Amino acid sequence: MFEPIDSDFSTRYSGIPTFFRLPVANENAAIDVGVFGIPWDGGVTDRPGACLGPRHVRVASAYARQEHGVLGVRPFEACAIADLGDVFVNPVNRDASLLSVRQKVEALRAKRIAPLAVGGDHLCTLPILEGFRKEAPIGLIQFDAHVDTWDVDFANERLTHGTPFRRAIESGFVDPKRMIQIGIREMIHSRADLAFGRANGITCITVEELRRRGIQDTAHFIGETMRGAEVYVSIDIDVLDPAFAPGTGTPEVGGLTTMELMQLVRGLTTLRILGGDVVEVSPPFDSSGITALAAATVLYELLCAIVVGRSNEIVQNR
Amino acid sequence: MFEPIDSDFSTRYSGIPTFFRLPVANENAAIDVGVFGIPWDGGVTDRPGACLGPRHVRVASAYARQEHGVLGVRPFEACAIADLGDVFVNPVNRDASLLSVRQKVEALRAKRIAPLAVGGDHLCTLPILEGFRKEAPIGLIQFDAHVDTWDVDFANERLTHGTPFRRAIESGFVDPKRMIQIGIREMIHSRADLAFGRANGITCITVEELRRRGIQDTAHFIGETMRGAEVYVSIDIDVLDPAFAPGTGTPEVGGLTTMELMQLVRGLTTLRILGGDVVEVSPPFDSSGITALAAATVLYELLCAIVVGRSNEIVQNR
Amino acid sequence: MFEPIDSDFSTRYSGIPTFFRLPVANENAAIDVGVFGIPWDGGVTDRPGACLGPRHVRVASAYARQEHGVLGVRPFEACAIADLGDVFVNPVNRDASLLSVRQKVEALRAKRIAPLAVGGDHLCTLPILEGFRKEAPIGLIQFDAHVDTWDVDFANERLTHGTPFRRAIESGFVDPKRMIQIGIREMIHSRADLAFGRANGITCITVEELRRRGIQDTAHFIGETMRGAEVYVSIDIDVLDPAFAPGTGTPEVGGLTTMELMQLVRGLTTLRILGGDVVEVSPPFDSSGITALAAATVLYELLCAIVVGRSNEIVQNR
Amino acid sequence: MFEPIDSDFSTRYSGIPTFFRLPVANENAAIDVGVFGIPWDGGVTDRPGACLGPRHVRVASAYARQEHGVLGVRPFEACAIADLGDVFVNPVNRDASLLSVRQKVEALRAKRIAPLAVGGDHLCTLPILEGFRKEAPIGLIQFDAHVDTWDVDFANERLTHGTPFRRAIESGFVDPKRMIQIGIREMIHSRADLAFGRANGITCITVEELRRRGIQDTAHFIGETMRGAEVYVSIDIDVLDPAFAPGTGTPEVGGLTTMELMQLVRGLTTLRILGGDVVEVSPPFDSSGITALAAATVLYELLCAIVVGRSNEIVQNR
Amino acid sequence: MFEPIDSDFSTRYSGIPTFFRLPVANENAAIDVGVFGIPWDGGVTDRPGACLGPRHVRVASAYARQEHGVLGVRPFEACAIADLGDVFVNPVNRDASLLSVRQKVEALRAKRIAPLAVGGDHLCTLPILEGFRKEAPIGLIQFDAHVDTWDVDFANERLTHGTPFRRAIESGFVDPKRMIQIGIREMIHSRADLAFGRANGITCITVEELRRRGIQDTAHFIGETMRGAEVYVSIDIDVLDPAFAPGTGTPEVGGLTTMELMQLVRGLTTLRILGGDVVEVSPPFDSSGITALAAATVLYELLCAIVVGRSNEIVQNR
Amino acid sequence: MFEPIDSDFSTRYSGIPTFFRLPVANENAAIDVGVFGIPWDGGVTDRPGACLGPRHVRVASAYARQEHGVLGVRPFEACAIADLGDVFVNPVNRDASLLSVRQKVEALRAKRIAPLAVGGDHLCTLPILEGFRKEAPIGLIQFDAHVDTWDVDFANERLTHGTPFRRAIESGFVDPKRMIQIGIREMIHSRADLAFGRANGITCITVEELRRRGIQDTAHFIGETMRGAEVYVSIDIDVLDPAFAPGTGTPEVGGLTTMELMQLVRGLTTLRILGGDVVEVSPPFDSSGITALAAATVLYELLCAIVVGRSNEIVQNR
Repeated sequence: MFEPIDSDFSTRYSGIPTFFRLPVANENAAIDVGVFGIPWDGGVTDRPGACLGPRHVRVASAYARQEHGVLGVRPFEACAIADLGDVFVNPVNRDASLLSVRQKVEALRAKRIAPLAVGGDHLCTLPILEGFRKEAPIGLIQFDAHVDTWDVDFANERLTHGTPFRRAIESGFVDPKRMIQIGIREMIHSRADLAFGRANGITCITVEELRRRGIQDTAHFIGETMRGAEVYVSIDIDVLDPAFAPGTGTPEVGGLTTMELMQLVRGLTTLRILGGDVVEVSPPFDSSGITALAAATVLYELLCAIVVGRSNEIVQNR
Repeated sequence: MFEPIDSDFSTRYSGIPTFFRLPVANENAAIDVGVFGIPWDGGVTDRPGACLGPRHVRVASAYARQEHGVLGVRPFEACAIADLGDVFVNPVNRDASLLSVRQKVEALRAKRIAPLAVGGDHLCTLPILEGFRKEAPIGLIQFDAHVDTWDVDFANERLTHGTPFRRAIESGFVDPKRMIQIGIREMIHSRADLAFGRANGITCITVEELRRRGIQDTAHFIGETMRGAEVYVSIDIDVLDPAFAPGTGTPEVGGLTTMELMQLVRGLTTLRILGGDVVEVSPPFDSSGITALAAATVLYELLCAIVVGRSNEIVQNR
Repeated sequence: MFEPIDSDFSTRYSGIPTFFRLPVANENAAIDVGVFGIPWDGGVTDRPGACLGPRHVRVASAYARQEHGVLGVRPFEACAIADLGDVFVNPVNRDASLLSVRQKVEALRAKRIAPLAVGGDHLCTLPILEGFRKEAPIGLIQFDAHVDTWDVDFANERLTHGTPFRRAIESGFVDPKRMIQIGIREMIHSRADLAFGRANGITCITVEELRRRGIQDTAHFIGETMRGAEVYVSIDIDVLDPAFAPGTGTPEVGGLTTMELMQLVRGLTTLRILGGDVVEVSPPFDSSGITALAAATVLYELLCAIVVGRSNEIVQNR
Repeated sequence: MFEPIDSDFSTRYSGIPTFFRLPVANENAAIDVGVFGIPWDGGVTDRPGACLGPRHVRVASAYARQEHGVLGVRPFEACAIADLGDVFVNPVNRDASLLSVRQKVEALRAKRIAPLAVGGDHLCTLPILEGFRKEAPIGLIQFDAHVDTWDVDFANERLTHGTPFRRAIESGFVDPKRMIQIGIREMIHSRADLAFGRANGITCITVEELRRRGIQDTAHFIGETMRGAEVYVSIDIDVLDPAFAPGTGTPEVGGLTTMELMQLVRGLTTLRILGGDVVEVSPPFDSSGITALAAATVLYELLCAIVVGRSNEIVQNR
Repeated sequence: MFEPIDSDFSTRYSGIPTFFRLPVANENAAIDVGVFGIPWDGGVTDRPGACLGPRHVRVASAYARQEHGVLGVRPFEACAIADLGDVFVNPVNRDASLLSVRQKVEALRAKRIAPLAVGGDHLCTLPILEGFRKEAPIGLIQFDAHVDTWDVDFANERLTHGTPFRRAIESGFVDPKRMIQIGIREMIHSRADLAFGRANGITCITVEELRRRGIQDTAHFIGETMRGAEVYVSIDIDVLDPAFAPGTGTPEVGGLTTMELMQLVRGLTTLRILGGDVVEVSPPFDSSGITALAAATVLYELLCAIVVGRSNEIVQNR
Repeated sequence: MFEPIDSDFSTRYSGIPTFFRLPVANENAAIDVGVFGIPWDGGVTDRPGACLGPRHVRVASAYARQEHGVLGVRPFEACAIADLGDVFVNPVNRDASLLSVRQKVEALRAKRIAPLAVGGDHLCTLPILEGFRKEAPIGLIQFDAHVDTWDVDFANERLTHGTPFRRAIESGFVDPKRMIQIGIREMIHSRADLAFGRANGITCITVEELRRRGIQDTAHFIGETMRGAEVYVSIDIDVLDPAFAPGTGTPEVGGLTTMELMQLVRGLTTLRILGGDVVEVSPPFDSSGITALAAATVLYELLCAIVVGRSNEIVQNR
């Protein structure tokens, strides 16, 4: 019922663009995973444009296939998945926008629908995490160039795209002991930037360390570390090198290739992923469109990881 | 019921882009005008890309307002209007694609829904005209840099974006005596190019003549000439100067400004417009996006002209 | 002392870019006019990017000449003019940013320095107007595609780039009887949009009316209407047609040519201009850079109008 | 024999791009007009890139038609015309490059071939003028935003793209009394800039004056003024407004539309045109390609004017 | 005689662009290898633009050097090589275009000229393979992101850019046992996509397997597998990662670097290469031009591999 | 005193752009390192635009951080560093421009200020090297795709961007035995190109060799080879692969990643670096801006290497 439009009957550039060419639905539909956009960048402190991200990622997501050739999963058959449209946000009102995102996630959670969001800037992840309202803090896997655990920006701003994870930890939504950051550029971070994470037990795998370990070992390490935890996966597209993702507000050289990121996400299939997001795609700086394509592809990888994880869980529960 | 999403609650870049932010429907809905895309450029003999036109015009059409300030009409209240999605076309099969467009128009006509199409290349207009299957040929108003009445291209190709109106006249779908071409670049046409039109009584208002007459007089002349006729309006975006519409496959310098085109279209409100189209927007060559914006705005003007014309008719019929 | 770098010794693309290649100073310098940037677009409700405007306008302003050939004025000799840098703004805090702009203008006013600002979005004009704190409301000349006198956006947002002039009038900073709007696109405004202006006596010259009157008559009319008043001049670059200024967040087809805008601004030399601004240049959408160039050139025209007006005043006071 | 490739058998984007899709030849061929490129911008004092102009104008010139619909001339039948390739130039040696251009023109003149050049920067026009070596100075029609009659740039540089016409007059190659400049932006020129022209009798029609006179009157005036003279026609593409020609090194707002320029060039058919050029197209700044298209089209207009003039002359000589 | 223009006398951006700056010739010239363009994309089922490929690859190929520093070969001395121009194709007629390509290859084969083609879309490879008309099927090395062995697209289209190799195998032009595909993205292919290849003995080296094997081993494996066979080499530029080749119609993340592709092609020097192609470069999506440059460089690598292979053969035959 | 503007109080896109957001100073200031631009590309023999490099690198350098997270150094605290503006150059006079650069470096040397330059083309490095006027030739580390040791270009041009190091060696400014070239593309160089280097003892590490050795070993080798020498470090941005640095005049595929270059530069901290440069950034070809970002980041790495080296020296001297 929730099948993508078949590219064998309609070219990928045809039709009204939805995520993965899926039907549009709302949270009352009988779906397992709901993909939605958050067209808002009011937490950005560098170049804007992430508010235009959902629209471009939708277009690029038309390239997704029915079957993931490596994992062997057919996500749209294994689960009921729909495009939920965009959350209503207000470009000049941060509190109202964050509340709206939180309420959307709460509504989805109430229906046992896993949220898969496309930003928007990284502050959007905070109300998603808040929306889970778990009894216990959840685990977090963050792919990012930046730690995003600053205390304040601009002297006393506690809610920007540089602070979401500090807030989420402070409020008990995320367990820092179950939090892994991957792709952090060590060179751009001072010791002070990393102090909070170290004091709180966050595992930080910088690019430099990732290169030493290798992708396979890192993927294995993440799986081992998070085993058994319920986790949320947040992917800031600036984790990629600007050669692979120029269209973002705060690009940092020295990042991952798209394939490396995909392999790392692909390694998460053993986990119980509650939801996830891909954020910080800024189309005005994506002159060749490859950033939206990379984002759409890792979104698909993340979707497949969620679907495979759910299947595993079902099997285990039998 | 068929109301656009209000930009006062959702920014214009939010949500899944439909024409004028209207609901999606099909021909079974109780609508007066159906807007649809034809993502096909298989008739193009110059630079391709018009197949991507519908997607970009949809995005740009988010700027349309609820009320046309000059005409004073509120089209989405005056009529029921919806986005019908894209016609199914086949990028490697010309005949199948043209047939599909024709059938779509026939289906709409059967439901008394006025078709408003977004191309696609100009060959797409031919099956639309065929779809009307009127007992008598209809009138045609063509805004274009090129006459598009060639007999053949490439020695013996009778169906390209340079031939649709020759074919439509030959088959009796269009009455050349009730056909006006506006914006033709006299300088790029040889006497041979214009011979068919002259022999068949087509009225051709070149850019040079348009400049001599002035926009107001020309608008008045068109209205007078077509008075009483049922007409179709086809707008090739290359009627505009490349400064105003660079994103098209065969740009020709020396064209109209967008405002001039809008004023001419606005002058058509006294006519009985059966349907219309805006074609030849090629997004890959539209680096600043202004071509899609111009196309979306003249599409809105044309929609308003249709709506006002319908209202006039209803009044007159009382 | 405040001389631009001479392009005869240093190419226009050389050196650290300041407005008109002028020296950098602060408000304690003995200057007559202070040019500054407001790199902030927190009031934007459509595509962002105006926060990057000052940087690109500075670069484009290197083309300004020592002498205005039509007016015959040499602004940098006639007055002491400097680049004051950018106002400190906070991308995630609207109130703090608006306060900062207001304080900057108050500081300049205290030193009798005329403020000439480069936005940033149009909400930036509100704190500038507030900064004048005149005993009586001042006059306002607004070049714009949009009226920007809405009451609220997004249901109850009173401070966006669509509301500054409503707020300025309500608070008594601007006298609506001495307010002229030029370049408004009549077609995109409903009657409701224009009701506030009409009720309060704002003079609105739409593009359609401007075309009927002609540029010369309109310039003359503006001069006559505002004679004797102290006026502020605010130029939203979207008053230009997208062919001339594609790089803006809310482009509207059917606008002015750059030359028309320049001629209108040039006609303001008889007025007592307290200050002015050029806003809404969004470089990410300015693929060819012509928007920044147009903005820099009209900024120069406005500067010359201020300088000539000051000279006239001095002459008259003798 | 020197026929363009017919676009009816080969799409305009096919084949190895030559000017107007003409055969390649050298000066020993029996041709009347030789079109050639000067891929050199060593005289530029602002943004570079004009060295890439010939290549892009060649590509855009594929749009030229066999017949000029307004003039009724078929240039490629009326005259033998060929693409002579590019002059050999040296990007780091100004004197060698200028000499090479001069020798090329001398060689063409020796064969009675009219030279039609595509720059390159405006300094390229100087060696072309020198190449004529007429007993008496020739007339010159210059379409340009800038006067290009400065004495020196950078304190003592006598050979830049700002000085060619001063040098040509000083050396007796051009008769200033028979020289008309059209499209000069009055606003960007100081009195000093214009002094040389006035002292020497150059007729300067600024944009402001052109607007007052109108295109038709100006075209007529040029024809009358130059009657009987042998003239050279030099077109700096920056005579156009940046909306119509963004791709140039020193754009100036407030210029001509492409149609206006074409009409002015079209008015030159009564003159005896010895040769001409189109210069200062800088493709790196021509993101939408419309500048190269405008340049190619005015090049075609100029070619037609030359061809018509030659035909007139032949008729008169009978 | 067939020497490239020396960049030491003419800058690489000068002159009429031919492949590798070689002379233009036709198949009657005494040449060993003929490079030609196929400006046609009528088999494309995703974003168009590959018809513009030959023009841009010609421009980029000006960077080729006289000597390949690693292989030590000087191809333009070792063999007689020329640019044969573009094949005549018809943008609206698939059969006519494919026939034209086939006839061109047959003509070259009759003259013992090795064909080296630049597309155009991947369907162009089919008529090239047909043109060989060997008594026995030949070997094929395919660099590609996609298998291009689908049976039909759009329900019953047997001739698209997704089907050429299925057709070539069915018709006996290619021996699937001697066919290797390299760079296939395993993740985007379902088991069904790969079934035909497996059933017929095609060797498919996915990106994932390539990473495991390493470039050197893979190159060695290809050489061993194809030893003794006459092979054709077809390079779809989308085998590269979008970071290295954004300008293609169906980009897929996770591809090769340009260097990896070059090293693989360089490894083919031991083979007897009958001809080859580089296809699917779509310039409208190549905003920075790096795709055309990558294509031109691998074209040069392939040319050198052919030249070295020929030399080896000559040596062995002595 | 010479502190960068803190991005925590002013967004990175705010303010007048200087290198690393540092204060502007001249050589009379008490500074250790002076960063300056050379906006000149008069030595370029391929696509121009490097004259615009300094402006764009300044903008991109706003991303530099206060602390280098890997090296642990805080360069702006460890040393006094300022932006010295741009050297005065003359776009049409090579000798005058080179002299100006040389004099600037001499002036800096006289004040014991280490020069750190941003080009401009690679010929700019020659007058910098001359400016050192050491009693003994200095060492040189060159990151580049090209050897730049040609004798002449264009038959007899001894001063182009392809010859600076030949000249510097011939004149005794550089010791070829202490010269290492890294990143040379072996494939694009003929044996003749490399002969000079081999004859004179230059160490050339091609990309192919770099891949065999690995980055770590190469970094170690460079450090060992240059131990004890005073060295200059010149970075031609075309050493990077076009995927990482498309915006350069002569791009060559098969280059380094930005991270690899950074790691190599980071390895130079043990050396006594007298100064350095980053050249050949050509913004007109840098559509996504990633080249300027890469250049700014490696400039920061080089700055840190200089600062660390100075610290080491001070420690050792105690």
